[in-house]
Amino acid sequence: MTSELAEHVSAVRLVDHHVHGAFTADLDRADFETHLNEGSPEPVPEWMTQFDSQLGFAIRRWCAPVLDLPAHATADEYWARRAELGVRTVTERFLRAAGVSDWLVDTGYGADAILDVDGMAAASGGRGHLIVRLESLAEGMAADGVSGRDYADEFGARLERAARHAVGVKSILAYRCGFDIDLSPPTPQAVATAAGRWLDSGGTRLADPVLLRHGLHAAVRLGLPIQIHTGFGDRDLDLHRANPIHLLDFLRSPGVADVPIMLLHCYPYHREAGYLAQAFANVHFDVGLAINHIGVRSTQVVAESLELAPFAKQLYSSDAWGPPELHHLGAVLWRRAVGRVLGRWVDDGDWSAADALRVVDMIGGGNARRVYRLE
Amino acid sequence: MTSELAEHVSAVRLVDHHVHGAFTADLDRADFETHLNEGSPEPVPEWMTQFDSQLGFAIRRWCAPVLDLPAHATADEYWARRAELGVRTVTERFLRAAGVSDWLVDTGYGADAILDVDGMAAASGGRGHLIVRLESLAEGMAADGVSGRDYADEFGARLERAARHAVGVKSILAYRCGFDIDLSPPTPQAVATAAGRWLDSGGTRLADPVLLRHGLHAAVRLGLPIQIHTGFGDRDLDLHRANPIHLLDFLRSPGVADVPIMLLHCYPYHREAGYLAQAFANVHFDVGLAINHIGVRSTQVVAESLELAPFAKQLYSSDAWGPPELHHLGAVLWRRAVGRVLGRWVDDGDWSAADALRVVDMIGGGNARRVYRLE
Amino acid sequence: MTSELAEHVSAVRLVDHHVHGAFTADLDRADFETHLNEGSPEPVPEWMTQFDSQLGFAIRRWCAPVLDLPAHATADEYWARRAELGVRTVTERFLRAAGVSDWLVDTGYGADAILDVDGMAAASGGRGHLIVRLESLAEGMAADGVSGRDYADEFGARLERAARHAVGVKSILAYRCGFDIDLSPPTPQAVATAAGRWLDSGGTRLADPVLLRHGLHAAVRLGLPIQIHTGFGDRDLDLHRANPIHLLDFLRSPGVADVPIMLLHCYPYHREAGYLAQAFANVHFDVGLAINHIGVRSTQVVAESLELAPFAKQLYSSDAWGPPELHHLGAVLWRRAVGRVLGRWVDDGDWSAADALRVVDMIGGGNARRVYRLE
Repeated sequence: MTSELAEHVSAVRLVDHHVHGAFTADLDRADFETHLNEGSPEPVPEWMTQFDSQLGFAIRRWCAPVLDLPAHATADEYWARRAELGVRTVTERFLRAAGVSDWLVDTGYGADAILDVDGMAAASGGRGHLIVRLESLAEGMAADGVSGRDYADEFGARLERAARHAVGVKSILAYRCGFDIDLSPPTPQAVATAAGRWLDSGGTRLADPVLLRHGLHAAVRLGLPIQIHTGFGDRDLDLHRANPIHLLDFLRSPGVADVPIMLLHCYPYHREAGYLAQAFANVHFDVGLAINHIGVRSTQVVAESLELAPFAKQLYSSDAWGPPELHHLGAVLWRRAVGRVLGRWVDDGDWSAADALRVVDMIGGGNARRVYRLE
Repeated sequence: MTSELAEHVSAVRLVDHHVHGAFTADLDRADFETHLNEGSPEPVPEWMTQFDSQLGFAIRRWCAPVLDLPAHATADEYWARRAELGVRTVTERFLRAAGVSDWLVDTGYGADAILDVDGMAAASGGRGHLIVRLESLAEGMAADGVSGRDYADEFGARLERAARHAVGVKSILAYRCGFDIDLSPPTPQAVATAAGRWLDSGGTRLADPVLLRHGLHAAVRLGLPIQIHTGFGDRDLDLHRANPIHLLDFLRSPGVADVPIMLLHCYPYHREAGYLAQAFANVHFDVGLAINHIGVRSTQVVAESLELAPFAKQLYSSDAWGPPELHHLGAVLWRRAVGRVLGRWVDDGDWSAADALRVVDMIGGGNARRVYRLE
Repeated sequence: MTSELAEHVSAVRLVDHHVHGAFTADLDRADFETHLNEGSPEPVPEWMTQFDSQLGFAIRRWCAPVLDLPAHATADEYWARRAELGVRTVTERFLRAAGVSDWLVDTGYGADAILDVDGMAAASGGRGHLIVRLESLAEGMAADGVSGRDYADEFGARLERAARHAVGVKSILAYRCGFDIDLSPPTPQAVATAAGRWLDSGGTRLADPVLLRHGLHAAVRLGLPIQIHTGFGDRDLDLHRANPIHLLDFLRSPGVADVPIMLLHCYPYHREAGYLAQAFANVHFDVGLAINHIGVRSTQVVAESLELAPFAKQLYSSDAWGPPELHHLGAVLWRRAVGRVLGRWVDDGDWSAADALRVVDMIGGGNARRVYRLE
């Protein structure tokens, strides 16, 4: 790798276009290890440690030095030092070391335990921007009380209000019903009926396909960029039904082409995501979340993400939630991956060095600044 | 890489076993950029350029020198020089530099804008061979006028006539209904009924599953190699429903084992294609089209294509249509990929150099010459 | 790669946690070549040789020296030497050279032609352990005679008896109905009815979904580790319906979490398998079978298998059946892959050398010894 590219990759200020807050309080080691496992909500079995994973090894390699430890410090050493420094110091060190100028924060999950948009800005020294989660908006509305007949109007009004302070919205429909269903806009009558049924049954976790589709298409009409969870996530979702390729009919449907669609995560279906980002001018994607969890293998997945999609259609994200190691590692591993992958192409003469610098800027932040109109 | 292998890879005369004609007329830059995007028929948005893609970078790296420019010339420089030389010179330079001895040309799409079989031969200095597209044959028949009752007989007669001058046929059923349906041969009565209905409705774009299946099985009876579009293509198709693994029941059905089945493109399902090429003696495949569009990443995809399939079952193709850069890049990138991948294996002692030379000859042209009986 | 890691990788005694016996008799070359093709039961066509494949090249590279030939000996030389030495010598050389301490042997397929558990132990100098194949147990019971009404009780009794001498059970449900069906436990009445129907129809190849599900859940109640064939196998199965991701509902169902689930093979769906091994504490997986058949490419697939799954959840297997080259190559190619992949990470500073040694021990044997309680 040319030293110019290496320096540029390590210095570029990133936009983390999909992230959540870092923990506000200290936690114990068992909880910490559970949060290193994205797929499972259960405690780590006693016959293993979640540190023995690519993520665990990456934490010991890249996060230990941020806490003044040598690279590859043991899990016990790491945990002792982390506890000694305390949540505030640990969080600030990791967030600041990430080199992120802008955090686009989805506050729709577990908000009680994590920093909000302003908290992320303050702790990191960067800027925070709000992403509104559609399903949380609906669930909040149900908690406040609304009738099935007023559901659509009230949802639209709340979405518009929330959007005034937001740069985008997000759908976790993948967690609630999968993409391999009819995703066309429901009729007003169908929405009223489904809303009445859902509200009558308590109006908690929104999993009604009609209301999920309604929320998605309300967002389409709103016009802000729509982030859609696809691929890797916890075992609540059916991974294969969250393959973004099942969004084809949705992407072809009227009106959708007019709003940026941001496919999040995508792993292990990032090649399908890259295809969609070539085939539809409004589709963008990232390989966040997986990058953290697969550690050293992020180099390969970043390389696989650089196939069909034009370079204007890819973004950086960490999708970190909770441990600020994740916010930091997303940036460290993305920089490392992109530096190694592009650096190799430059060394081999396939790419020019100037092009490599440009593409780093585009994916690292430029594309996000354009899509979300951050400046 | 041994210099013997490097020299052999760069000198071997290829058979491009699935390709279309190059443009016959000059076009403007916007049109050119649109044709660098396989997935979308739409104009490239004004906030990006399709040159900022792996294909665009590969054009600037590998095609610029063919037009007397330095490698990595800018898009503007490239476009200016290309316009200056004109379509005839540009086409001849790229086709001749590809080092292709035989082009197997599917003329079934957009024939008005591109060179025909003889035109390709003349412009390239190689030989041209015809591939008959089944769906175009049916649509031509409908345009000429035929009754539903005579459809099957007339289709059979036309297919046989066309086949006299062809080395193979092709199906784009993937574009019209996907593979995840019943692909067994329909009854004569069902064909007559479906044909009547299709002809009554105008007999244009053939998308009736019964008639598509009929065409496919007529080709099976004919006995020529059958090329089947699978995987990557424009967004008209449902990518996941074009996964060749859905052809399993078709491949197991009576009679199909007696005719060579050529799975085209396959990306990102080339591992499934490799599996089918191991599991069925008559199944062959290529990773054309993707090779062009993913540029430097073609090395990885070629490597992934060299897993389960015996080496007698893989072929080279570009699937180029329109810009002759695509005809050229297919060959350049395949040579580069195979040289690097096999060269590494020879360097590491996993393969012998003699074996590597043999496999280059098989995939580069020998397998195609055997299957299509080119000599 | 550090010399310490290289030495460790080549010396570590493996547990082959899923394997079958080696041939007991000499065979002719045509039969041998057929057995180098996992996907197809048909003779190799006369216009090719199965030696021209990654597996064939790997045999000539790695197995030839075990028979005193130079690396890359020709197929003819290899075959002549193999025939000269005879089955007993060939088998002993390959099994002993594999460096396997424990073979977990599934005897449920083609038992007449291959070594049994004791035969494998004797020929290899290692220990043998029995894996009971559920479907074979049911078919044996049908051959002995049982009524539909007694089916469930008798199956349970036989399973319990067989399990006294076994370390695990195996299901080949993937071959008989695929995973994309209801895999919940059937009612006793449904089992009795289905059993009666199957037994009346002859009670040979068990393909009734009710009885297959019954067998699987009987194994869950038994509590021994359950090996499940997923992914790559012969063309009898629908590869995509054997994607382990379709087991999600089964894995979420009551009781299943209490028993180790061992996903076998998984290729080309090993990333989905790695996801499941992160998401469910009881799920483990391997990339056996593919490793043999893709030869030098095993390095890449082993790397791909080291992404989401914690390192305590992966195992080594060869899934060899018949030619003892397969028993040997599984070990050779796994050692080579893991040495190269982990060695690179250590060289680059991503992993510590000590961690690499630990992970080799875990995947090579430690995890299997823990799960199957081998010591």
